Amino acid sequence: MKFQKNAAGRLVPTEVNGQPQTPYLGVGKFRPTGRKAAPPIRTCADYPADGNKVVKNLKEALKKAGLKDGMTISTHHHFRNGDAVTNMLFDTIKSMGIKNIRWFPSASFPVHSHLIKYLEDGTIHHIEGSMNGPLGRYCSEGKMKGMGVLRSHGGRWQAIQDGEVHIDIAVIAAPTADPFGNATGDRGPAACGLLGFALADSIYADNVIVVTDNLVPFPCVPWQIQGNNVDYVVEVDSIGDPSKIVSGTTQVTKSPDRLLIAEYIAQFMEDAGIMKEGFSFQAGAGGINLAFAVYLKERMKRKGVKARFIRGGSTKYLVEMLEEGLTDYILDGQTFDLEGVRSMRENPNHVNTSPFTSYNYHGKGNFASMVDAAVLGATEVDINFNANVVTHSDGFLLHGIGGWQNALFAKTTILAVPSFRDRIPVIVDEVTTLVGPSELIDVVITERGVAINPRRKDLIKAVKGSSLPVRPIEEIYEEVTAICGKPQKPKVNKEKPVAIIKWVDGTVIDTVYQVVQ
Amino acid sequence: MKFQKNAAGRLVPTEVNGQPQTPYLGVGKFRPTGRKAAPPIRTCADYPADGNKVVKNLKEALKKAGLKDGMTISTHHHFRNGDAVTNMLFDTIKSMGIKNIRWFPSASFPVHSHLIKYLEDGTIHHIEGSMNGPLGRYCSEGKMKGMGVLRSHGGRWQAIQDGEVHIDIAVIAAPTADPFGNATGDRGPAACGLLGFALADSIYADNVIVVTDNLVPFPCVPWQIQGNNVDYVVEVDSIGDPSKIVSGTTQVTKSPDRLLIAEYIAQFMEDAGIMKEGFSFQAGAGGINLAFAVYLKERMKRKGVKARFIRGGSTKYLVEMLEEGLTDYILDGQTFDLEGVRSMRENPNHVNTSPFTSYNYHGKGNFASMVDAAVLGATEVDINFNANVVTHSDGFLLHGIGGWQNALFAKTTILAVPSFRDRIPVIVDEVTTLVGPSELIDVVITERGVAINPRRKDLIKAVKGSSLPVRPIEEIYEEVTAICGKPQKPKVNKEKPVAIIKWVDGTVIDTVYQVVQ
Repeated sequence: MKFQKNAAGRLVPTEVNGQPQTPYLGVGKFRPTGRKAAPPIRTCADYPADGNKVVKNLKEALKKAGLKDGMTISTHHHFRNGDAVTNMLFDTIKSMGIKNIRWFPSASFPVHSHLIKYLEDGTIHHIEGSMNGPLGRYCSEGKMKGMGVLRSHGGRWQAIQDGEVHIDIAVIAAPTADPFGNATGDRGPAACGLLGFALADSIYADNVIVVTDNLVPFPCVPWQIQGNNVDYVVEVDSIGDPSKIVSGTTQVTKSPDRLLIAEYIAQFMEDAGIMKEGFSFQAGAGGINLAFAVYLKERMKRKGVKARFIRGGSTKYLVEMLEEGLTDYILDGQTFDLEGVRSMRENPNHVNTSPFTSYNYHGKGNFASMVDAAVLGATEVDINFNANVVTHSDGFLLHGIGGWQNALFAKTTILAVPSFRDRIPVIVDEVTTLVGPSELIDVVITERGVAINPRRKDLIKAVKGSSLPVRPIEEIYEEVTAICGKPQKPKVNKEKPVAIIKWVDGTVIDTVYQVVQ
Repeated sequence: MKFQKNAAGRLVPTEVNGQPQTPYLGVGKFRPTGRKAAPPIRTCADYPADGNKVVKNLKEALKKAGLKDGMTISTHHHFRNGDAVTNMLFDTIKSMGIKNIRWFPSASFPVHSHLIKYLEDGTIHHIEGSMNGPLGRYCSEGKMKGMGVLRSHGGRWQAIQDGEVHIDIAVIAAPTADPFGNATGDRGPAACGLLGFALADSIYADNVIVVTDNLVPFPCVPWQIQGNNVDYVVEVDSIGDPSKIVSGTTQVTKSPDRLLIAEYIAQFMEDAGIMKEGFSFQAGAGGINLAFAVYLKERMKRKGVKARFIRGGSTKYLVEMLEEGLTDYILDGQTFDLEGVRSMRENPNHVNTSPFTSYNYHGKGNFASMVDAAVLGATEVDINFNANVVTHSDGFLLHGIGGWQNALFAKTTILAVPSFRDRIPVIVDEVTTLVGPSELIDVVITERGVAINPRRKDLIKAVKGSSLPVRPIEEIYEEVTAICGKPQKPKVNKEKPVAIIKWVDGTVIDTVYQVVQ
């Protein structure tokens, strides 16, 4: 395995799973060339004139799609830990005796630990996609045949669009669909809101299979996935467990420390002048973010300020803001609770977006950079304002990137983190894995104070005179280290990279190594 | 100029405007190969992070887009005869001294006779797109430097998608847009309903310019055109004359003959068993079609039957049916009146469609073939059930194809025509120009009777015993010829083809020749 040093000073492999790699060159430095990937031209002469593309079962659909050893098969993660389709899919693939599949999910969850046996027996060669939990641990232990490739939501679109990843067969689980393949996520027993993570797959894959447990007569309206991109439709009893489809992290935190962080963020937004008429922000799920939304809402009401748009992952807290007229729009990439699903279905101002509109860096701009402030989390932030969201300080790869890298392009990016978790520092001297470069991270807010990136002189000036505990990040670091001790560096085998982290432009920003225990 | 005989027995050029052509091979016979066209990969690094793509004026946008001699520039026709942008565009191009543009409109109208001077002086080399009225006459007179290429709405999508027509710069007039380029047709002073005819242009063109007279803060919702496909936004005083944007043909006919035809269609739909619970139909604008919709509605109410969907061009008559619960959905390709625009804006069950969803023959199926019955017009129908919509019997090319060829794929296609117009027969021995082949035309309904294509034995059987005047088409032809006399064949110069008619798959179905007077 050959390595090269990238612009962030990180060693990254020159080649991964047989594909040559470009090292990270810095933000906005890589210049793509050429034209986008293009799917085969089809003809209506080969599709049923009555629009009925329903086939008997998944096996028949896969056969018709020409499933072969070594193909790339994609799935989406809108059902999160409630997904039933991916396991069913690989059970079917296994039963067909097919080997060496490159699985290209938009993310995987603990429910997919069912697939470890297929990684063991060679049905799946490797995973390119976020690995939350058990599959990440499996990968970290060096057991996967190929290397993991982690991409942000926008990076996944970019990779498909640019032809870096060619999808042979996309399998799209759809809460409601018609026999033509039009599909929507906003209704049906397993409603998940939207299907944006599967949109690129539907457009660019050679073959597209829609799997649904709620087949309705044509037309399925809205058609978030267009039947004109779909080859086969499969009806099954259940595509997922609705109770697990919504995120588990949709409760406002009860921790006093985290509530304090949330209050600091809200105050920062006001004191720095970000919270003003027509502003915009992004805040995902997770206890701190939800509490922040609640606090910000109070401040907005007090000041009589209205947002132009809020970027979701939506939750009932954001939906309330929309319904109370505190924002014109929610531009939503994924719904995190049932209120989000309902609102998206009913309210035309709760707009579903996709990684194309929001995050694709190889487009003609995207929404992320128009957002005034993004409030995000991290597993580690270092004193140079670099951040990590994929590995823990013990080196284990346990989280995906999600839209995190993409959202960093907001005008102001705020990382909201406790200064330590379970006596393990979050503010560190150097991140285990570099996922977000310093120049895009503006503010780090902990319960011990607010650290502003020295590059952002404007923000430092803006909060002068504020009652916020603004402090150098080094000071917070020293304090945390004094309490927890300096954390041990992870024990890893530097000869055995197990995964790479892509930057939003397809270059490699860092490497994840086998953890040695 | 070399010709070859196609599968319909028509002579068509082997090469047009320097591009080799495939002769029509029969319905569903041409097999496309290869992959779709693909636009260049861009990077956000080259676009403003704040999303503001507004430039000073059209000239600056064209300069930035790299306008050069010989380029292909596309426009759309949602403003019909009220369009102000295309004339402004070519005034600008002329002022920049650019020559030999291939103008690729989705259609042109009498308002564009302003451009004849640019065809004369070499600013525009030729037009590929429907030519309604004066530009068609100009072309018929053999004055255009290149040959006209007429495509259906679906054929235009197919040509762009398949890479037959590469658009260098798409100029999209938008009734409402934001600085990022998100745009919609359903609101604003020049609201036209939707922008579906410009959708392919926005996706596949190298450069996309949005021109609007109603710039709103980001986000423009809905975004029928996605800003992520847009390079520049230009604000102008007015993009069109709203009073001329809606079609002129939205009055129910008062002619007793035409009312009779409309009643026959409605009765045919009922007697043939097409009008049943959950059925679907397509009926455009034009006096007969509107009257048909009114009659059908009465029959549906009387029988207690509800449609699943109606395909627009929508009018107030179809909107009433939606609002009275006589159909679940309108699937609309263009709004023909202000009620259509309002309904599309307000009613989520009035769905905007595009040539991709509805008509593209080189897709994985499309909506057109799922429609139970399409009611269409024609300039001529012959005794073999071939039909013409582009030329008159004098040979002049005065109309575009619109979605007509695409809609022929309905389960039952009904041509509703008076048997003659101004003493010129519509039912003829052989069509002047073949636009729709016999095998897709099932029923011809005139005031003199209903002729069913002998291929459709099922329909002949279904209406046995009906009080409809079902007659052989030859009988109607003889009657009409006895009244009007046999029309003179047009005087054309067979050595000088002036335009070709594409079939839905990109093959050439017929040739239009210079008219000699």
